[in-house]
Amino acid sequence: MTLQDLPTPCLLLDHGRLRRNCQRMHSHMAALGVGLRPHLKTAKAAEVAALACDSQRRITVSTLAEAHFFAARGFRDITYAVGLAPHKVAEAAALLRAGVALRCLVDSPEAATAAGEAAAAHNVTLPLLIEIDCGDRRGGVLAESDSLPEIAAAIAAQPNLSLAGVLTHGGQSYACRDLDCVREVAETERHAVLRAAERLRAEGYAIETVSAGSTPTASHAVNGEGLTEMRPGVYVFGDLDQMALGSCALEDIAVTVLATVIGHNRQYDRIITDAGGLALSKDVSAQDFLPQAGYGWVMTPDGEIVDDVFVAAVSQEHGKIEAKDGGAPPFERFPIGSRLRVLPNHVCMTAAPYDRYHVLMEDGDIAVWDKATGW
Amino acid sequence: MTLQDLPTPCLLLDHGRLRRNCQRMHSHMAALGVGLRPHLKTAKAAEVAALACDSQRRITVSTLAEAHFFAARGFRDITYAVGLAPHKVAEAAALLRAGVALRCLVDSPEAATAAGEAAAAHNVTLPLLIEIDCGDRRGGVLAESDSLPEIAAAIAAQPNLSLAGVLTHGGQSYACRDLDCVREVAETERHAVLRAAERLRAEGYAIETVSAGSTPTASHAVNGEGLTEMRPGVYVFGDLDQMALGSCALEDIAVTVLATVIGHNRQYDRIITDAGGLALSKDVSAQDFLPQAGYGWVMTPDGEIVDDVFVAAVSQEHGKIEAKDGGAPPFERFPIGSRLRVLPNHVCMTAAPYDRYHVLMEDGDIAVWDKATGW
Repeated sequence: MTLQDLPTPCLLLDHGRLRRNCQRMHSHMAALGVGLRPHLKTAKAAEVAALACDSQRRITVSTLAEAHFFAARGFRDITYAVGLAPHKVAEAAALLRAGVALRCLVDSPEAATAAGEAAAAHNVTLPLLIEIDCGDRRGGVLAESDSLPEIAAAIAAQPNLSLAGVLTHGGQSYACRDLDCVREVAETERHAVLRAAERLRAEGYAIETVSAGSTPTASHAVNGEGLTEMRPGVYVFGDLDQMALGSCALEDIAVTVLATVIGHNRQYDRIITDAGGLALSKDVSAQDFLPQAGYGWVMTPDGEIVDDVFVAAVSQEHGKIEAKDGGAPPFERFPIGSRLRVLPNHVCMTAAPYDRYHVLMEDGDIAVWDKATGW
Repeated sequence: MTLQDLPTPCLLLDHGRLRRNCQRMHSHMAALGVGLRPHLKTAKAAEVAALACDSQRRITVSTLAEAHFFAARGFRDITYAVGLAPHKVAEAAALLRAGVALRCLVDSPEAATAAGEAAAAHNVTLPLLIEIDCGDRRGGVLAESDSLPEIAAAIAAQPNLSLAGVLTHGGQSYACRDLDCVREVAETERHAVLRAAERLRAEGYAIETVSAGSTPTASHAVNGEGLTEMRPGVYVFGDLDQMALGSCALEDIAVTVLATVIGHNRQYDRIITDAGGLALSKDVSAQDFLPQAGYGWVMTPDGEIVDDVFVAAVSQEHGKIEAKDGGAPPFERFPIGSRLRVLPNHVCMTAAPYDRYHVLMEDGDIAVWDKATGW
């Protein structure tokens, strides 16, 4: 099988780059003395998880569908790092009964109480982490909040709950423009979750897990003291957004979308491909940093960057490649029916709808790795 | 089964609204005297296609995966309305051999020649439509282009191809700000494809199909003369983008995403739900017209609009609902664990990753309809 035999659009994964990205994070976490619990919301594939994990095979997921997918493939220590809806305790209970060490997240006494009642109804003991907002402004309570001890008390009041620790996510690192900022967010993240742990420990709670991390902060943190683990995710693949943030180099980006040229619009200077808004996603995060990130940059099938063009626009199943200088794109380089690869703007969103990776192995073979989709 | 029993996030489809949207387009096409070949790229479901089609069950698709899905469910007259990549002729040939009246699209002599050679290799006769660019600037050649007769000649030169007609898509209608503009695009679309048909007929080609249409232009066209069919798609569901364009009313929008409230971020005045960027898509088309379209508007489970809030931001699996006036959202109206529905910004992108609809039937039942996903 070669790239010419693959259906398009499809997801390509460069095994050598993936392996190096995983090794780099392993080394960095080891140097910090912090455990690694990679977030598999990006990759959603067991073979990627195996490379990303250490021997403890601890993972993070963003949906219970992912939890089921990985549990069925031998990953038995799973943190579901999105606030738990009470009705999802039924699914969580099924995983717990199957022997999975699943931990879920709450950020209010109400959520804890509802989870405890549901856990009792399903006759399981559910370990919970309390989510701390260190500046991401999404889920979580502030480390100094009055709610923090109230949540711990609500958990303690429920016989079918246990308090496993505290967790935060420095998502504000994605707004940084330089590494000093990222390092500052990493410290903010660490201090917030340590402070929460300290407050709870002072009240007599045993806080086993102190968890932080986004790909930017995990990549650039210089101090891991007090953290038991970090949960980066997108570092396994990298993308233009991470490159713009300084979390990876262009040559680290491991996932591309393979597309076929289906037309030359010479009237309007566009090369048209079969990888559109669904195949690339409509996420344009990297445009904040790279004005011509568009919906992705372009490589030849052999992996050579074509740096004078970009995917300027998409419709559902059409990609529209234009020259960065506004002139005619190199039509002759991309004949009708020829193939090209698109480096994703934001790979978490790009990879999500595909059900497999075509993996470019170091020996030239192409492997197929299944991935989870949906909810 | 009630809305309280459904997993979240999931796609809800209001059957009464769907039926009325389909009836409205049937009536309008009948009044224009134009055939209807609905574009199923939006719905990707056989039950929706059955309501959208007339007795001839002619449909349009955007991928060959959709073509296979619908062919297996009794839809045997299919136009694949994205420029044909030569390597996809193998898949097209399988459908043709299975008796499907499949027609494909080309917009260059090179694409026609490559398709003809592949059709010969697969021993089928492949009917082709020539794509006309009426101002959409995507695929297609201009009606007056020198390429048009060259493409027809390239098709005629290939014994395994036949020329079935001409097709255009007035996608520029999506940039209109009023209905006069939409009606003008509808006429531009019609004139372009008629002019292309006229030129080819003058050269002796039999042009059976003269196809036009987007949801805005099909909804508002006042003259269908010369067209054999129109291909609107998103009208079956509607969304905030179509509402902003005047193609549907708020109460016509038939698809919503059911979400669960997972948190109250009182520090930053946000209600957090489990429907994020994957569940809603990151398409923000409607924001050009409705600055607070965000990633969608909010309804109660009963279908009552909560018009003082909107989904202001998303991350992969989190939705962030804020008050439109910048104050506190009505937390008490949306307790932790309660459900709400999100009206999509652009439903084609929102619906794509789900593998089913939960259909709210007029009698109160909830049906499940499968849908196609991926490629």
